[in-house]
Amino acid sequence: MRFHLEPATSSDGVREQHFSLDEIPGVLWSPASASGPRPLILMGHGGGQHKRAPGVEARARRFVTDCGFAAVAVDVPGHGDRPKDDELDALAAQNRARADAGADLYPLIARFQALVAERTVSEWRAVLDAVQRLDHVGDGPVGYWGVSLGCGLGIPFVAAEPRVRAAVLGLGGALASAPAARRITVPVRFLLQWDDERVPRDEGLALFDAFGAADKSLHAHPGAHAELPRHEIGSAVRFFARHLGRAAIAC
Amino acid sequence: MRFHLEPATSSDGVREQHFSLDEIPGVLWSPASASGPRPLILMGHGGGQHKRAPGVEARARRFVTDCGFAAVAVDVPGHGDRPKDDELDALAAQNRARADAGADLYPLIARFQALVAERTVSEWRAVLDAVQRLDHVGDGPVGYWGVSLGCGLGIPFVAAEPRVRAAVLGLGGALASAPAARRITVPVRFLLQWDDERVPRDEGLALFDAFGAADKSLHAHPGAHAELPRHEIGSAVRFFARHLGRAAIAC
Repeated sequence: MRFHLEPATSSDGVREQHFSLDEIPGVLWSPASASGPRPLILMGHGGGQHKRAPGVEARARRFVTDCGFAAVAVDVPGHGDRPKDDELDALAAQNRARADAGADLYPLIARFQALVAERTVSEWRAVLDAVQRLDHVGDGPVGYWGVSLGCGLGIPFVAAEPRVRAAVLGLGGALASAPAARRITVPVRFLLQWDDERVPRDEGLALFDAFGAADKSLHAHPGAHAELPRHEIGSAVRFFARHLGRAAIAC
Repeated sequence: MRFHLEPATSSDGVREQHFSLDEIPGVLWSPASASGPRPLILMGHGGGQHKRAPGVEARARRFVTDCGFAAVAVDVPGHGDRPKDDELDALAAQNRARADAGADLYPLIARFQALVAERTVSEWRAVLDAVQRLDHVGDGPVGYWGVSLGCGLGIPFVAAEPRVRAAVLGLGGALASAPAARRITVPVRFLLQWDDERVPRDEGLALFDAFGAADKSLHAHPGAHAELPRHEIGSAVRFFARHLGRAAIAC
C-alpha cells in the first residue's frame, strides 16, 4: 500500500500530520518535538463523523499532551473525505426508512456496523503498520479508543490485533459485538449512557458482560447517546497511562 | 451529648485523633499541621468491620494527604468498640441460620441494614455537629464514603443531611435502599461488583437507577463483593476533589 505523509503543522505542543494510505485519509498527532518510539492510540470515530470530529481530536490532543503518546484516526468507508460508498449509502437509506416506519433502531445499527467492520479491521491493521514505521511513533504498545460506531468497529479490530494492549469502548451493544468481545482479553474500559436512545441499556450491559477481559470496568452515566460526560476524557487518559506504560502528566 | 477528644498522634503528615461522643467511639484524621475549615468526609465501615478497618483508614489517609480534607469514622452499633447489642446480635444470628438453611442472603442483609440505619442517621448527624466545631475541621462541605453496610446506612444519612454535598456508595441494592436513594440529589458515584455474591447484580443496577441525582456515575468491575479494585481509591479522591471544591494533589 502507498503511504503519503503531508508536511507537519504544530500548535499547543502537538504536531499534526495528515496522511493517506492508498485511498484511506488519516491524521497523526504526536508531541511537537519528540522522536523515538512511544505508545500509540488508534481512534475510531462515530457514525456520520470523521477523523477530525471534535470529540476525536480533543481526546487525541489530550493523549499527546498529557501522556506523550501518539494518536491516529482515519476516515472509515463512506465517511469524511472517503468517496461515496453505494453499498453503505443504500443500507443507511434502508435503515432510515425502516426506522421511520417504526422498526427498532438498534438491530439496524448493528447490521450496518458489521458490514463496515468487514473492511476496517484490515484497513486499521495496515494503518498501524504504516505509522509505526515512522521514527516518532515506532513500535510501542497500542491502545484503541472508540464509542458508538467506533465501538462496533473497534471490537473486532481489538479482538484481531495483538498489538492492542488496552481499549476504551462504549455506546455499543451485545447484538453487534458480543462474539468478538468474548475474544478480547486486554484491559477494557466500557462507557454506557444510562438513557441511550440508540442502544438499549440491556444490550450495553450484556456487551460489558461479554468481554473476555479479566480487567474490565464499566462507567455508566445518565443521559442520552451523545451526552458522555467530559470528565471521562481524563479517566481515559489515566486508563491508557496505567496500561500502556507511561505516567500521565495530568493523572 | 458529651464529646471527648483524645490527644493527637501524627504519622506521614496525618494527624489522628480518637474521640467519643457519648457512647460512640470515633477517629478523626486531618492534615498534621493544618488549621481552619476544610471539607470533611464521613466514612461508614462495612458489616463486621469497624472505624479503623484497613479499607476505611487507607482511604481516610488519602483524602487527607491528597486533598487536605479531614475524614471521620465511628463504630456503628454492635461493631468495633461499641458494646454488644442484643437486638442486632439476635437478628444477625437469625440471618445466619436462615442463610445456612438456604434462604437468599440479600433480603436478610437489607433487613439488618434498615434496623441499624434507624440509629446511625441521628448518630452521624451528631458526629458532624461535634467535629465541625473543631477549629481544624470547621463547617466546610461534607462528603460521604461507604460501601456494603456503609452504603445501606449511608443512603438514608445522605438523603437526610443537607451538609453532605457528594457521596461515594456501593455494594448495595434497591430492596434495602431505593426509597431513600430517590431523595438523594447530590452527585453520587456508585460502585458495583459484577459478580457480587451478596448483592444480586440486578439489585445493584436498580439502586443506581433509583438515585435522584442528575450527576451520578456507576463504576462496575468483575469480581466478588470484597474485591473492589485499588484504583477506585484514586477515583474517589478525584470525585470528592471535584465536588467539594479543592484540587486534589494527586489528580
